[in-house]
Amino acid sequence: MAKINRNYLKLQGSYLFSTIGKKVREYSEKNPRAEIIRLGIGDVTKPLSESVTDALHKAVTEMGNEETFKGYAPDLGYEFLRKVISEKDFKERGCDIDADEIFISDGAKCDCGNIQEIFGVENRVAVCDPVYPVYVDSNVMAGRTGEYDAGTGRFKDVIYMPCSAENGFTPEIPDETPDLIYLCFPNNPTGAVIKKDKLQKWVDNANEKGSVILYDAAYEAYISEEDVPHSIYECEGARNCAIEFRSFSKTAGFTGLRLGFTVIPKDLKVENECLWDLWARRHGTKYNGAPYIVQRAGEAVYSEKGRKEVRTQIEYYMGNAKIILNGLKEAGYTVSGGVNAPYIWLKTPGNMTSWEFFDELLTKANVVGTPGSGFGPNGEHYFRLTAFGNREKTKEAINRIKMM
Amino acid sequence: MAKINRNYLKLQGSYLFSTIGKKVREYSEKNPRAEIIRLGIGDVTKPLSESVTDALHKAVTEMGNEETFKGYAPDLGYEFLRKVISEKDFKERGCDIDADEIFISDGAKCDCGNIQEIFGVENRVAVCDPVYPVYVDSNVMAGRTGEYDAGTGRFKDVIYMPCSAENGFTPEIPDETPDLIYLCFPNNPTGAVIKKDKLQKWVDNANEKGSVILYDAAYEAYISEEDVPHSIYECEGARNCAIEFRSFSKTAGFTGLRLGFTVIPKDLKVENECLWDLWARRHGTKYNGAPYIVQRAGEAVYSEKGRKEVRTQIEYYMGNAKIILNGLKEAGYTVSGGVNAPYIWLKTPGNMTSWEFFDELLTKANVVGTPGSGFGPNGEHYFRLTAFGNREKTKEAINRIKMM
Repeated sequence: MAKINRNYLKLQGSYLFSTIGKKVREYSEKNPRAEIIRLGIGDVTKPLSESVTDALHKAVTEMGNEETFKGYAPDLGYEFLRKVISEKDFKERGCDIDADEIFISDGAKCDCGNIQEIFGVENRVAVCDPVYPVYVDSNVMAGRTGEYDAGTGRFKDVIYMPCSAENGFTPEIPDETPDLIYLCFPNNPTGAVIKKDKLQKWVDNANEKGSVILYDAAYEAYISEEDVPHSIYECEGARNCAIEFRSFSKTAGFTGLRLGFTVIPKDLKVENECLWDLWARRHGTKYNGAPYIVQRAGEAVYSEKGRKEVRTQIEYYMGNAKIILNGLKEAGYTVSGGVNAPYIWLKTPGNMTSWEFFDELLTKANVVGTPGSGFGPNGEHYFRLTAFGNREKTKEAINRIKMM
Repeated sequence: MAKINRNYLKLQGSYLFSTIGKKVREYSEKNPRAEIIRLGIGDVTKPLSESVTDALHKAVTEMGNEETFKGYAPDLGYEFLRKVISEKDFKERGCDIDADEIFISDGAKCDCGNIQEIFGVENRVAVCDPVYPVYVDSNVMAGRTGEYDAGTGRFKDVIYMPCSAENGFTPEIPDETPDLIYLCFPNNPTGAVIKKDKLQKWVDNANEKGSVILYDAAYEAYISEEDVPHSIYECEGARNCAIEFRSFSKTAGFTGLRLGFTVIPKDLKVENECLWDLWARRHGTKYNGAPYIVQRAGEAVYSEKGRKEVRTQIEYYMGNAKIILNGLKEAGYTVSGGVNAPYIWLKTPGNMTSWEFFDELLTKANVVGTPGSGFGPNGEHYFRLTAFGNREKTKEAINRIKMM
């Protein structure tokens, strides 16, 4: 008699964004004339840039020609892409990351979700609270979290690291020593960043205690301030304790194209085993590579023209962030984020719960945001808005919120 | 102190195709003038068809335009693709599979590797021997197989179902009752098929015992004989016990484009839980969908023109299969497969081991094939050749083998 993975039954509700989608659909059906503005899910709205579509067209033509057709991709990804990433994203920033330490994939979400597999089920996991739900949920599925406690809204065996206004939404090193530490900076959902000296302390501590840091840098392209690290490998010793995740989704509008990568330095050992070898084995066994045409599109992002186009897109979104940030401040909200990240984090007014504010925003302003409590109990009474919308609609949304 | 997943250390050698790649690279470096013909890895060589590249170009143009740009795909995949699959692959064959029971993914390898996650670690797994390595390896990683026994070449807790010339390379229902049963027909590596009456017995048995059949039908498009089922859902009761995997890789040359799907009927329950719900949760949490442009390419495969083009490609490969099958027979080899599958399965001459024959074929004929023993101990003394090569090279390979 087959048995299910009972850890799945510990998962709370359905995935946050599915729930939001359902609520919005239901509201739209009842109010077909409502012009809903979505500043909820972190999905981009700008089309792929010319360099990217040119590269895609060219690669599609290659795929239609017997002489230039490409079948299975190399396990780690095409070297043309890994090389340019190593140069532009790492070596140019003084980070010693080789092309062979980069694993191309179809996105940071998959990699962040799958990475826990190469670690034993007995590892203690630490996450920021609030946090991107994938880190916790993928560990729940694997049986690493214990039971859910409805009273605290937390899983018994997870170490939650509170991120609040008091600590500038960056966590303190916890008293208990975790084995695996998920850090995400610039942060989703709070938009906070970690300064280099503070990140260095995390790296030093991980090396001292033998922990592994799983560093999600999906939003690094949004960093605008000087002393904020773009990669954890800017810190000394990070090659010995950190895995980094990157994404083309928010950098170059690839949410519907799917491309990301994971960096595992060859120096990174756990119990004397190279994590590089374990991840390579997983990659080779359970994955078959990102499409050739998409890897060519990724390469185009690093061309001179591609970089300019991408910069323009990011500046556009960060212009939206400024409008949201300033608009909400004018309306009397307490807000943060939005300077080095496309996310604006606001305190709900009048001590409303996050979902109460979600409903109020949806029904009174027809604006969709993301309830902070969906990211963890410490996100309660907070709310996330994203800067990925269209400029006019973003302005309109803020005007509507001001009139609420 | 972080701990690794020690199950990974039980994995034997490296992934079969990586080892082959390494051996061929080393031989090429030493013999730079050798013209190697690859009939080893099951990778296609024909370019994408016109319908497919047209659809890709069109979708790329959409992605470059603000009005038609697509971000994140729906969790299950786009409805335009799920609908046409449901119609053409299932309903037209009398299989009652709804569009909502189809999960679009980036390939059958990933789905076959990931599906075990929704089942408990205590499930007993049954696999054919020989078998596509992903089924066993993904279960080794999950800790479901116990230790490897070098004497038998088998994992202690896996139920191996021998497939040999005596049973026409289709397994008998084992004495021990498995919880999860991997079946792959048309089979990789043997090229064997299962007739409908025999498959019905597997379905009846699974329903009686509460087992789940994981049915890999990645090669169904190669079926040429009448009484061979294309889908397990042609059998009565399969909606209650079977998950089916499909791929565009071998059907339409998508190995480098990446597209596949998994079917989970909503009736399929284990311990009163719908497997559909569990897989949907996994899909939503750890995966972000196949690229929009690739899903449009998949849709084009089902157009009238697309189907004709794909049929022509498959006929080309099956023409190769005939050349290999007949050529090897003429040369005195014992061969099977190659009629409903692009794989030809041959008995090594003179009781050579599979790897001995691999080396002999590589050095004497400069032809690369796949050692049967790489697919399990019962594949020892067998060898797989694939029909995915170019016609002239395939002929040349067979001529060289004849002269060995």
